[in-house]
Amino acid sequence: MSLRYVPYHELERIRSLDADPRERAAAFADACRLNVLYMVMRAGSGHIGTSFSCIDILSWLHLEVLGDDDRYFSSKGHDAPGLYSVLIGLGRIEFDKLHALRRLGGLPGHPDVLATPQVLTNTGSLGMGVSKARGFVLADRRLGRSGRVFVLTGDGELQEGQFWESLQPTANRGIDELTVIVDHNKLQSDTWVERVSPLGDLAAKVRAFGWQVGRCDGNDVHALAAELDRLASEGEGAPKLLIADTRKGAGVHRMEPHDVPDEETSLYGFHSGAPVADDYEAGVEEIAARLARRLGRDVELVEEPLPRRTPPELPQRLIEAYSRAILDLGEREPRLVALDADLRLDTGLVRFRDTYPERFFECGIAEQDMVSMAGAMALGGLLPVCHSFACFVTPRANEQIFNNATEGTKVIYHGSLVGIVPGGPGHSHQMIRDIALMASVPGMAAIEPYCDAEVAAALEWAVRDAEGPVYLRLVSPPWELGFDPPVTQLEQGRGTVLREGDDGVFVCTGPVLVSQAWAACELLAGEGVRFGLAALPWLKDVDGAWLAEVAAGAPIVCLDNHYVVGGQGDAVLSALAAAAPESAAQVRKFGVDRVPVCGANDEVLRAHGLDAESVAARALSMLHSRV
Amino acid sequence: MSLRYVPYHELERIRSLDADPRERAAAFADACRLNVLYMVMRAGSGHIGTSFSCIDILSWLHLEVLGDDDRYFSSKGHDAPGLYSVLIGLGRIEFDKLHALRRLGGLPGHPDVLATPQVLTNTGSLGMGVSKARGFVLADRRLGRSGRVFVLTGDGELQEGQFWESLQPTANRGIDELTVIVDHNKLQSDTWVERVSPLGDLAAKVRAFGWQVGRCDGNDVHALAAELDRLASEGEGAPKLLIADTRKGAGVHRMEPHDVPDEETSLYGFHSGAPVADDYEAGVEEIAARLARRLGRDVELVEEPLPRRTPPELPQRLIEAYSRAILDLGEREPRLVALDADLRLDTGLVRFRDTYPERFFECGIAEQDMVSMAGAMALGGLLPVCHSFACFVTPRANEQIFNNATEGTKVIYHGSLVGIVPGGPGHSHQMIRDIALMASVPGMAAIEPYCDAEVAAALEWAVRDAEGPVYLRLVSPPWELGFDPPVTQLEQGRGTVLREGDDGVFVCTGPVLVSQAWAACELLAGEGVRFGLAALPWLKDVDGAWLAEVAAGAPIVCLDNHYVVGGQGDAVLSALAAAAPESAAQVRKFGVDRVPVCGANDEVLRAHGLDAESVAARALSMLHSRV
Repeated sequence: MSLRYVPYHELERIRSLDADPRERAAAFADACRLNVLYMVMRAGSGHIGTSFSCIDILSWLHLEVLGDDDRYFSSKGHDAPGLYSVLIGLGRIEFDKLHALRRLGGLPGHPDVLATPQVLTNTGSLGMGVSKARGFVLADRRLGRSGRVFVLTGDGELQEGQFWESLQPTANRGIDELTVIVDHNKLQSDTWVERVSPLGDLAAKVRAFGWQVGRCDGNDVHALAAELDRLASEGEGAPKLLIADTRKGAGVHRMEPHDVPDEETSLYGFHSGAPVADDYEAGVEEIAARLARRLGRDVELVEEPLPRRTPPELPQRLIEAYSRAILDLGEREPRLVALDADLRLDTGLVRFRDTYPERFFECGIAEQDMVSMAGAMALGGLLPVCHSFACFVTPRANEQIFNNATEGTKVIYHGSLVGIVPGGPGHSHQMIRDIALMASVPGMAAIEPYCDAEVAAALEWAVRDAEGPVYLRLVSPPWELGFDPPVTQLEQGRGTVLREGDDGVFVCTGPVLVSQAWAACELLAGEGVRFGLAALPWLKDVDGAWLAEVAAGAPIVCLDNHYVVGGQGDAVLSALAAAAPESAAQVRKFGVDRVPVCGANDEVLRAHGLDAESVAARALSMLHSRV
Repeated sequence: MSLRYVPYHELERIRSLDADPRERAAAFADACRLNVLYMVMRAGSGHIGTSFSCIDILSWLHLEVLGDDDRYFSSKGHDAPGLYSVLIGLGRIEFDKLHALRRLGGLPGHPDVLATPQVLTNTGSLGMGVSKARGFVLADRRLGRSGRVFVLTGDGELQEGQFWESLQPTANRGIDELTVIVDHNKLQSDTWVERVSPLGDLAAKVRAFGWQVGRCDGNDVHALAAELDRLASEGEGAPKLLIADTRKGAGVHRMEPHDVPDEETSLYGFHSGAPVADDYEAGVEEIAARLARRLGRDVELVEEPLPRRTPPELPQRLIEAYSRAILDLGEREPRLVALDADLRLDTGLVRFRDTYPERFFECGIAEQDMVSMAGAMALGGLLPVCHSFACFVTPRANEQIFNNATEGTKVIYHGSLVGIVPGGPGHSHQMIRDIALMASVPGMAAIEPYCDAEVAAALEWAVRDAEGPVYLRLVSPPWELGFDPPVTQLEQGRGTVLREGDDGVFVCTGPVLVSQAWAACELLAGEGVRFGLAALPWLKDVDGAWLAEVAAGAPIVCLDNHYVVGGQGDAVLSALAAAAPESAAQVRKFGVDRVPVCGANDEVLRAHGLDAESVAARALSMLHSRV
């Protein structure tokens, strides 16, 4: 199969059209849509739906509104492919980067100022946009500069408390340099905003905070241009917010949602991830045909083969295993209730929700609210399990998690999408700090399984045996181990010895690192070095005596799919220092030593020295330096 | 000097008065005011202003409104003395606890369900109340129970995003069992809400979120009773919020504010901390006289001597040192701006604000907003320093702090009130997790000075030398070291050897632990054991080779004014494992191993084994176990 993109000279030609600027922007937006499709298909993942809903807005702003002193950034951030395609079309990002979405050295899955200087601030974690905009304006005022700031937000994003926290101070300071545009496409990650956590009367709410509010069709450039003009001329001294009614996936019929918010519907299929070939072809055809009508000629497209990707053959699928496990435990433990923050598909809750609708609580993108609500539910006699990606729930609701832990109740926290892979979304989603954030809660247990069977055992332990709160850490992408995991029992503080070896032992968990360590053992064996491997699911309260016995005096190499500070390696080191001090002198920690890079999974593992080859080489070099 | 309290039989007599229930409640509230004054004076600290503003509400609710199935809790939490005095007056907390506010085994400075079973949920960190209330209601509904929930909030508290995050879902779920009462006393920690971060049209805002809103004088029991009745009868299906206009310090003329919000005023003097003797006497006199009029007789009071407290003679005052240091650096570094989250007095910013008003940004109780704003200011060319208590800024804004750190800019974070002392406020304020939370941010430096001179050096380093973001951790209460700190230079990764010793070396920082370690060295010397002491300000990136050299093969005992997981001890262990493995086997970590207890400072240090005697005994026992 082949892909098609709009070459730079064609983009230049379109944006130089001698036409009504609004028609020109609409044509440019369509050309950019084609390139978004290309980028995401080539990357194998990326957010099409939200890029399409806002790309008419992006095109109009960048072609006609923004001056040299003005700033634009997206608070939602996952519309990055949309922004990149526009900036590439403007010649502000070099064209070749079109081929490198979500690749090392290319364009990150979410905005990153260090990787892409045209990007003004890092986003990807929601709700920060208005606070940042005010910071830019106040810095400008202080330094004698001027300029307007335009910020795009999502609508699901408006469930985050920080958005509301930021509104009143912005009005109080009279930040009328700011226009917020809400890309109101009515759908958030899983499904309709109205079905997840309705926003109520958004315009009335924002007005009550002292803002000037407008509303228009955000996929109609004529309406958009008029409403932006109107807003700019009104409400002196007040910040402005424009509710842009858009369609998620706008511009490709089959990528737009076709049911209605008040019906029980299936999940929206184009939030993230690349479309199937058929949808891609239909999308290109529809956009190209519309663009041809706009231009009065065919748009020039360049063909490029779709990169081959081989899916794993017999991977561990931890999220699916979790999905089965919580369904099973739900049946056996009637007090168990599941709380979700708009990620029920990604956290494995779809079946639980369908089976136990009265025990499923959809909280929307409101992690703090979810966690505090769970705390009271636990006080009230339930056993709540909170679900989200680790990157969102463990830092944003950290104070709430600690608060719950001080009450002597049990709340379980499911944090998935942990570690540096998938590498495509970038550092806002590559969670490498959650062990430090959760292990530092007194009384919190923390556990990360490496295979499907251990997921079930871990949840069983958390629900049935644990006395206090538990953090359950889960790698999300299906991942091949390279061996069949043996059947074992979960034993507190201890792990599974997967390989024996006299020259050293790797200690780690999670399918990503266990697979790399296994392969590293093989590589080392080829060099005549016998390394063992212990999969240790406990991220805290490690049984140091057991581990010392496993290592039997040999070097212990801890591999952390986490920042090297505060990860499992530190727990191992502490446990050994207390229980078997001489073994503490034998510990080396390999982990992530900086903000994770964005890229394909193998690129990212290699860049951080955590792929099998690097691990083997680092272990060898360590052994040599000890001689 | 002597204190006076209302004995239990007098409280019983007042609450059994055969009178208009509203008059009875007003009299009961005044009796409770006397006991609040007593408790806070005896404890030496506590929140009088907010306890007084809400005590008429508390009295009315508890005497006349709450049924057996109903719940009441305070979201602001620091009104705990008010709640305790009411519950004591009702016989629901044993009377003797009146004498044990903020003491070990007594009544914690903020509500704690484990210490005080009459308390329903732990608060003290703001903004969680509505989320928790919804959790209680949903648990009740699920378990077939019913009952109303009444939640008291502050007004400054409403600057927190979580409050707004929690409003819409509560309306969406039709939680009409809930009534929120805003203790709208118009003053937050430092000064008038209107001067810190105005709330705008609060009623209109809350209504726009789908709530039923009422308003009345919250210190007038007649008005309060009527408005609660009215609210209960209206707006079926909607949660209710009552704006209770109150006076901070209500009931004692000189504890009420007497300037007006739109004037530049001095700071309010009765937010926390015990009043001076003169204010106490005037308060008792005024309340007792009014109560006598209400009762038609004198109120019975019992005298009790004021416990003697000796203030430290020549303490280190880190916050004052900080105050001078930031003023000085402000002069030398024009890009430096200071951001504050309603703690300018406690974080040492009063003089900076007065000297550089245009470089001081008061953000209110909105840590996430403050931190994200600071991030953009840094991108815009400024050098922002964010200020708050560590317990608020490091967990609540953690995702925002990480986000800033990914942008390659420099933001400095001042986190004070760290560690287990002062022990009076309780675990919501005793921050023992901040090193873990901040050290786990890649690129973040983390530093904690132990003496005044080191504060200046640390801030100087952060502002002038550090390349990335810096966390500056500060103990708040004035604290005597027991020795004169030598004049030294700050050297990256290294500390100051304060004492030499062959039998072992204590490694720690902060005046609290350095003083305990110093005294422990003296105690050990008395036993013929020579322990050394190194004050190490670096909480991360420790110079392991230097430390190994200092220890010279002797045991290294790390003392952490922090949870033993993720504290400085872990940084020391890691540094030694990397640079001098044989020394890693010599490390022992003494730190806080559970949620901190509340109590007087000496009680708290002893309870956690971190006072000089315990430290010396633990070190001795360690040495013996090694023989």
